[in-house]
Amino acid sequence: MTAVSAAQSQQVDPDELVARLRTHARSYHSLHPFHIAMNEGTLTPDQIRGWVANRFYYQENIPIKDAAILSNCPDTTVRRRWIKRIVDHDGLEGTEGGIEAWLRLGEACGLTRDEIVDHTHLVPGVRFACDAYVTFARTQPWTIAVASSLTELFAPDLMAERLAAFEKYYTWIEPDGLEYFRNRLFQAPRDSEHALEVVTEHCTTPELADAAEAALSFKCDVLWSMMDAIEGAYGG
Amino acid sequence: MTAVSAAQSQQVDPDELVARLRTHARSYHSLHPFHIAMNEGTLTPDQIRGWVANRFYYQENIPIKDAAILSNCPDTTVRRRWIKRIVDHDGLEGTEGGIEAWLRLGEACGLTRDEIVDHTHLVPGVRFACDAYVTFARTQPWTIAVASSLTELFAPDLMAERLAAFEKYYTWIEPDGLEYFRNRLFQAPRDSEHALEVVTEHCTTPELADAAEAALSFKCDVLWSMMDAIEGAYGG
Repeated sequence: MTAVSAAQSQQVDPDELVARLRTHARSYHSLHPFHIAMNEGTLTPDQIRGWVANRFYYQENIPIKDAAILSNCPDTTVRRRWIKRIVDHDGLEGTEGGIEAWLRLGEACGLTRDEIVDHTHLVPGVRFACDAYVTFARTQPWTIAVASSLTELFAPDLMAERLAAFEKYYTWIEPDGLEYFRNRLFQAPRDSEHALEVVTEHCTTPELADAAEAALSFKCDVLWSMMDAIEGAYGG
Repeated sequence: MTAVSAAQSQQVDPDELVARLRTHARSYHSLHPFHIAMNEGTLTPDQIRGWVANRFYYQENIPIKDAAILSNCPDTTVRRRWIKRIVDHDGLEGTEGGIEAWLRLGEACGLTRDEIVDHTHLVPGVRFACDAYVTFARTQPWTIAVASSLTELFAPDLMAERLAAFEKYYTWIEPDGLEYFRNRLFQAPRDSEHALEVVTEHCTTPELADAAEAALSFKCDVLWSMMDAIEGAYGG
């Protein structure tokens, strides 16, 4: 048995892998100064609008990213669950999804629908980071692309904190506009649970476990880099 | 104005484009000798089983192909309709889709589920043709990939003929196994109607209209080449 095949046959303990993945909460963008300021209620309306307008590009690209994973995934059972993410964002005919909910958030903040959709305020660094995420999903093995979605493990805490902050400090925003955050409170845990199942089932060798961890680290960098670019454009 | 931009500004009449696309019925695999024999009721059980087992590889790849189109499509409204194709084939949690229906057809023909899923009978030429179709959808502009799906314009006639032939000549096949063909009788017209809308809306220059027609011609080649490979392996 060669060193490589010996290493490959060595199984990774799923609980240990989950614990390793969870440590990446330390690099989650909730700790970015701009996010801390947001949740402390000290951002100006212009800063909030800048964040909402820029973050829309991320929202827009989520179903594109998830369809890329779907297209690389040969497992029908996984696809049947993964496709819900696309429906959550795009909606179905006659229903509205997350992209529409985000546009409403933008309108509630005083942006027009056109200036959001036309990327009037989109900062290059945000575009590059989101495009890098889509490229990652298109070109990496699907299980590793799934691992990159695991920032959702950390999302519910941030979302709950953000929702409370918006309701308390940014009362100039129409409360109906916050529906997107409310939906993600239950969607994100369901999604991350599925992604964790996939990753722990498939990433059973040290090499694949390392790749899964690197994917999550990369995704933390994507989100952090977006915050840097937004802070650079709108001030910290 | 350069020659190129003059040509690009020249609009293509949608009805004329549809008429041009429809002429490709002449290259549809319904005219392949193997298909003609199938619908005349002269194929042996081994030939039918060979076709069903090989065609499964095509069925399996349809949602992969459609997810690739979804992932390349920036238009939420189109995605909301296109995603139904994936659900039709994969099903949702707790429901069965076209892939499962095709497996049941295989079982009704006397194949085991395992020998279908494991590609025991898969002929290289069928694999190459289906893989070429998926690569086309991944790499071509999404509107051109949509045009390649337009063999669905010709599918309902073939499907109705095939269903009648199976019920009349191949009575050794359990009738429940024919559900896939029945479903496609209404799914294919709905799907091709949407694809035609997309193609006529987007392929408005002579260059794009030519590319759409070439895409449909390519797809006819994919299906025809599959029949050649199956005929080569199982006899005509």
